[in-house]
Amino acid sequence: MRLPLALSALALLAAASLKPLTPSEIVAQAPTTAWRTIPAEDVLLIDYQGGGRTIIQLAPSFAPVHVANIRALAGGNYWSGASVYRVQDNYVAQWGTNDDKKPLPGSVVRKPPAEYTRSPRGLTIRPFAYTDSYAVRTGHSRGWAVAQYRDGQVSLTHCYGTVGVGRDLAPDTGMGGELYAVIGHGPRQLDRNIAIVGRVIEGIEQLSALPRGTEALGFYKEGTVAKRILAVRLASALPAAERPSFQYMDETSASFAAYVRTRANRQDDFYRVAAGGVDLCNAPVPIRRTPAP
Amino acid sequence: MRLPLALSALALLAAASLKPLTPSEIVAQAPTTAWRTIPAEDVLLIDYQGGGRTIIQLAPSFAPVHVANIRALAGGNYWSGASVYRVQDNYVAQWGTNDDKKPLPGSVVRKPPAEYTRSPRGLTIRPFAYTDSYAVRTGHSRGWAVAQYRDGQVSLTHCYGTVGVGRDLAPDTGMGGELYAVIGHGPRQLDRNIAIVGRVIEGIEQLSALPRGTEALGFYKEGTVAKRILAVRLASALPAAERPSFQYMDETSASFAAYVRTRANRQDDFYRVAAGGVDLCNAPVPIRRTPAP
Repeated sequence: MRLPLALSALALLAAASLKPLTPSEIVAQAPTTAWRTIPAEDVLLIDYQGGGRTIIQLAPSFAPVHVANIRALAGGNYWSGASVYRVQDNYVAQWGTNDDKKPLPGSVVRKPPAEYTRSPRGLTIRPFAYTDSYAVRTGHSRGWAVAQYRDGQVSLTHCYGTVGVGRDLAPDTGMGGELYAVIGHGPRQLDRNIAIVGRVIEGIEQLSALPRGTEALGFYKEGTVAKRILAVRLASALPAAERPSFQYMDETSASFAAYVRTRANRQDDFYRVAAGGVDLCNAPVPIRRTPAP
Repeated sequence: MRLPLALSALALLAAASLKPLTPSEIVAQAPTTAWRTIPAEDVLLIDYQGGGRTIIQLAPSFAPVHVANIRALAGGNYWSGASVYRVQDNYVAQWGTNDDKKPLPGSVVRKPPAEYTRSPRGLTIRPFAYTDSYAVRTGHSRGWAVAQYRDGQVSLTHCYGTVGVGRDLAPDTGMGGELYAVIGHGPRQLDRNIAIVGRVIEGIEQLSALPRGTEALGFYKEGTVAKRILAVRLASALPAAERPSFQYMDETSASFAAYVRTRANRQDDFYRVAAGGVDLCNAPVPIRRTPAP
């Protein structure tokens, strides 16, 4: 009775290959062509005293003046000795010098324009198929989740790990010296109200696992900080051999489409019911370290 | 020229009183009638070795068998010496004995029914006006955010601080000995796939600020834990004088309506553009300590 046995082995094999993939499996199996390398001048490294590193991808297409400021501040060693001085639960961790008298590198624009939204001109936006609680429509462009509004303007979105520019009240937009990362449920009400300059792509736990500040808005008590920053540098400023390199998944790839569809319709073993939808912030653009050639 | 001066002082006063309130100000100003006291048998206290406490409100209307199990486990001192053994960034912190051979108090139902959803019968649901990425409609009932689906069934929702029952693969639903709290962007894809039993109402930072586990899914390495649990008790088991008491804001109150509307349309000084919408998870039901009489 060899034939039936062989057949059922084949049937098992077929069943295994038809088993729905998880989003992580889709990402792991994505071909090289689905990935785009992030330029080294868009990769910002924060090294902390006592060890640990947080890595941020900058978004020059969406906040060019603020990103240019951040590159200039990093190049001018502005953040050496800066600190993480605010950690508000389910909201943000914020760092910088918290000193508006500290001298700035010459090219820093002190009052940047309000880069809270931009025109969609020049952007190809891949529509995101699922409903959003905040924007008329959403999609992805150049590796970023974007929201679009009634007036046609486009913004990046406040999701977990999003990095924005701390500011005082309008019309001050913040020059980029004080930055925050989202460490809770995406505070999308901030979209269009603040300059988003990037996202954490590695080492978010260096910020999210910090003790929460005990003062109003999660600020640390005067004279205390959550942790000190040793240096903030662009990857492009490092010797080539020390430069970490990252890739994001191209939103026009078949892998990305499958990834989003599966995020909205989990059917792997754990799931009894597929949601049939997904929040933009629950389908973050996949990022990976560039594999060795 | 006294009259004009007096007039402009009045005008200033009027402007001040017309200044849009923040959600926190609406909550702080809500009258006593807007608040409902949470029964002491729905308040679960987790005390940690070395200090610190997390307080959970149980949801017996939505997962009655699981909640009865949790009350029995607390009454039987089941969690003394248990631990937080999993902390996954932007997902959950999980605690329990991680020991499926530990004897259970007699009344614990070992295989509870799948209380992932319930019939809407008997629930008065106050509609939530804004779009949701997961459910056909959403609203609030008995102080809880609920989602409703095509089949009419209702579930609680996975938002920041939501507490659910860890389980293995279906059809096991977990008996309630292993619990998790959401410490990241609301993983709403878990709705209808797991039993939600409550929400953290105080001390979430005892879980959210823990070092992330280094193993797969944020588990701690074999033999290590994030922290140890001293005791888990119901507030009703404490002497009256030691019992913390909490209130939630009634979803049928004018204050709650104003709170949600303002969450969707922030117009206080910081905001340049009101969102015009809000994610259900970004309008958490206000909770407060019961004020002294």
